[in-house]
Amino acid sequence: MKLTRLFAIAVLFVVSLTVPAFAADPLPSWNDGAAKQSIVNFVQRVVTPGGKDFVAEPERIATFDNDGTLWAEQPMYFQLAFALDRVKALAPQHPEWKDKEPFASLLKGDLKGALAGGEPAIFQIVIATHMGMTTAEFEQIVKDWTATAKHPKTKRLYTEMVYQPMLELLAYLRANGFKTFIVSGGGIEFMRPWTEKVYGIPPEQVVGSSGKLKFDLRDGKPVLVKLPELNFIDDKAGKPVGIQMQIGRRPVLAFGNSDGDQQMLQWTAAGSGMRFMGLVHHTDSDREWAYDRKSHIGALDKALDEAQAKGWTVVDMKKDWKVIYPFEKQ
Amino acid sequence: MKLTRLFAIAVLFVVSLTVPAFAADPLPSWNDGAAKQSIVNFVQRVVTPGGKDFVAEPERIATFDNDGTLWAEQPMYFQLAFALDRVKALAPQHPEWKDKEPFASLLKGDLKGALAGGEPAIFQIVIATHMGMTTAEFEQIVKDWTATAKHPKTKRLYTEMVYQPMLELLAYLRANGFKTFIVSGGGIEFMRPWTEKVYGIPPEQVVGSSGKLKFDLRDGKPVLVKLPELNFIDDKAGKPVGIQMQIGRRPVLAFGNSDGDQQMLQWTAAGSGMRFMGLVHHTDSDREWAYDRKSHIGALDKALDEAQAKGWTVVDMKKDWKVIYPFEKQ
Repeated sequence: MKLTRLFAIAVLFVVSLTVPAFAADPLPSWNDGAAKQSIVNFVQRVVTPGGKDFVAEPERIATFDNDGTLWAEQPMYFQLAFALDRVKALAPQHPEWKDKEPFASLLKGDLKGALAGGEPAIFQIVIATHMGMTTAEFEQIVKDWTATAKHPKTKRLYTEMVYQPMLELLAYLRANGFKTFIVSGGGIEFMRPWTEKVYGIPPEQVVGSSGKLKFDLRDGKPVLVKLPELNFIDDKAGKPVGIQMQIGRRPVLAFGNSDGDQQMLQWTAAGSGMRFMGLVHHTDSDREWAYDRKSHIGALDKALDEAQAKGWTVVDMKKDWKVIYPFEKQ
Repeated sequence: MKLTRLFAIAVLFVVSLTVPAFAADPLPSWNDGAAKQSIVNFVQRVVTPGGKDFVAEPERIATFDNDGTLWAEQPMYFQLAFALDRVKALAPQHPEWKDKEPFASLLKGDLKGALAGGEPAIFQIVIATHMGMTTAEFEQIVKDWTATAKHPKTKRLYTEMVYQPMLELLAYLRANGFKTFIVSGGGIEFMRPWTEKVYGIPPEQVVGSSGKLKFDLRDGKPVLVKLPELNFIDDKAGKPVGIQMQIGRRPVLAFGNSDGDQQMLQWTAAGSGMRFMGLVHHTDSDREWAYDRKSHIGALDKALDEAQAKGWTVVDMKKDWKVIYPFEKQ
């Protein structure tokens, strides 16, 4: 009797080492509904060996837009808020900015006036705040800013304004053998200093817009200098290009929130076998923001039409998400 | 007595599930010597938790040149052999090539005459053979070529002419938590169709030279078209740039074989903490080829001086490697 019991204990111990605990809901911040169901259904199908929708693990590439998909983007792209803070910080070293647009307007707090100059004005701000330094210097500036700068509405760190349901989705995909990537119009060097800590996405899995770099020796020490020249814009038709250049495989799952993501979703959809295309629809004016077709930021118009026509998953933030930000969880 | 024995068996069974078998030599094709010792010593130090040289797993980035480091590169870069085969295959569609350099010389078998035109001639060959088609079409062409084309000396497939000791090194590093990357002057789209199968390095871990791509819809189906325009040359000072652009982290280990790898090794060496810089020195005229300072392909001159001055590891193929290619193992 004792022998049997001891054996049973030993077996139980062995089993406990090899069988995972009964799986809890991997997406607890998602309300039950069509969006959540479509995600779980997709994942279960592609990971089932022998099933007709099975996808081998190395092919489980999942790409996510960042602004408006993984973190908020209102009242302005967070990277633009960073650039404006940098203009203020650098102004003492640039007395000429007082009389020079777009800096003069910016320093008076007139963002609209500053951006009236269109793309050339934005490019001047980008050059002044993102270039002409080494990659190591810029990384430190981004780390300092993300550790201290607060969002004007929530008064939270910008990196706290990430979407809890999307964090759960990233973790759920990784637990099922997916490799998760960011594919963003944002600057690649602006994202990499914090994506690993915040999203669990390492620098080598971040695709983004970039400026040209130059290898140089300073006092015999190698540096990479950020030149005042654009290299690549990872937006719209640039997203499939960025995916091919850096990942070299077509995603089986892609998530975005705006027309800037439409081509990434088309590229994903055009692969063979089962695919998942998702859009975050900003419908929650109380807990977040509500905007789509006519928004100046993150406009979702043509991609929404295509999603509806083709049955892509559209996440209704208001209805589908129990919480928006991690800090809302008690 | 029986009880104790049963318990002992149960414990042994549990232990067998959690403790790896006694490790066999992970580098059996390397002769014992300074090179092998320096590799094993480096790996043991960086993976030892609590040790002063410990490197956290996400930071264990290892980058390898390809031509002359992972596979052979004589009597010409294998990608050039591919391009020449493509010129021959495409010639019937291009009757004008009979009177047009560099194609006219190439088709007569006069490689030297064809390359007399220097970089513009090479670029014309690259455009004619690598561009103007979709990425999917090019991938299929590369797959077909690597499955059939034979090396003029060994009569083996080119993908069989990889270095067995380096395959073991890649596997050894990965078994110790390293992420292995290729950082090559070769074309990124030329390497990706076969690196996963041959080296265990997936497409997203291949950094290389590239042409520009354009997203397009053909009959409503998205394609990526390879444009006749260079995008990036991943060689010399371009290698640290390619590493930063695509990986975004500095390697802790880098391996090359020529002056084209010198800046990658400098960039690696300039990081904090323990680093490993290695060069494959082609010293074996019997089993492979012997060449270094004055070679037209894979010249190793300044990087060899720097390696000797700074104590980087130089692998002497003739002395350090028991076998060169996998097919030599009985």
